Amino acid sequence: MKPIKSIERLTAAFRKLPGVGPKTAQRYALSIVEADEAAATELCEAVKAVKRDVRYCSLCGNYTEDEICDVCRTRDSSVICVVAYPKDVPSIEKTGYTGVYHILHGTFSPRDGRGVEDLGLDKLMSRMSGVKELIIATNPDLEGEATALYISGLFKKHFPDLKITRPAQGISVGSDMEYADEATLTRALAARREM
Amino acid sequence: MKPIKSIERLTAAFRKLPGVGPKTAQRYALSIVEADEAAATELCEAVKAVKRDVRYCSLCGNYTEDEICDVCRTRDSSVICVVAYPKDVPSIEKTGYTGVYHILHGTFSPRDGRGVEDLGLDKLMSRMSGVKELIIATNPDLEGEATALYISGLFKKHFPDLKITRPAQGISVGSDMEYADEATLTRALAARREM
Repeated sequence: MKPIKSIERLTAAFRKLPGVGPKTAQRYALSIVEADEAAATELCEAVKAVKRDVRYCSLCGNYTEDEICDVCRTRDSSVICVVAYPKDVPSIEKTGYTGVYHILHGTFSPRDGRGVEDLGLDKLMSRMSGVKELIIATNPDLEGEATALYISGLFKKHFPDLKITRPAQGISVGSDMEYADEATLTRALAARREM
Repeated sequence: MKPIKSIERLTAAFRKLPGVGPKTAQRYALSIVEADEAAATELCEAVKAVKRDVRYCSLCGNYTEDEICDVCRTRDSSVICVVAYPKDVPSIEKTGYTGVYHILHGTFSPRDGRGVEDLGLDKLMSRMSGVKELIIATNPDLEGEATALYISGLFKKHFPDLKITRPAQGISVGSDMEYADEATLTRALAARREM
């Protein structure tokens, strides 16, 4: 049996989605073959709408359909939380955080040829009037730590009165001491608090 | 933070794909936001092409981009393998089967209001001239068995000389006797062969 060209083409397109292998992609493609016309059209229109309407907020760099996102427009801008990617924002939102964000769209990563000049820190610099605290919430990994260190050093030099913080590292709530990894537990002990 | 309408819309569209939950759908939607224009356009175009080009073969009911699929056009039509869905065909193709297919697009399922008249057997009936064997490869479950029984009864009445077969049921190759389920093992013993 010869493969059917348009199904193969759609399978290849679905394979570009994150974490989708050949079997899943084919399953998705066949479901589109069987889907009603309206559902297929809606998928297309929704893809087009996202590409047409979603842009980066010109202040913080998060996703928005406007020039300035609603967080920048309506919230307390004296605290800025710096994150690497827009996908990091929802986790922080869930904590009840009420400040604004700044999205770097990447971290300092010499391995991938991303230097500090690619972090777009001049944009963050230009937002600092009236800011009291900068929370640097990049990932607690090598690149996230290096990025945080670099930003903190740079901003301390330019804004000596600015409070610069980083979320605490330690053992997860509800986790098991027995299975805590060495690096995490080392930091958790170093940052131990009096009860 | 207010949800972004077009991202929510695309997330909802992706949720219609089989086995996709809210988290995965959002991940897919965000990947489209970050994807380059060409990849997003290609996904749309591929969906449109599938809906425009893929149809059912007017003989066997399998997917094709032509009036008659290449299997019906080029292969031995004296053996017809009846399956419930187009997705069942690739498994049988892998065995090296050289005959043609007939796709029922469903099974007899009174529970879902699908009676025998919905199986479209008149179409299969009209293909029987010169056919020597009918392999009924519906699933070995309640509905698949009922469908196979009904078809076999009907076709035996109309075509007394037709050979009607069903794939053997038994323990899987490479499986563990210890874990074989009772129903399967009962059938495997009943159909035991001399060595």
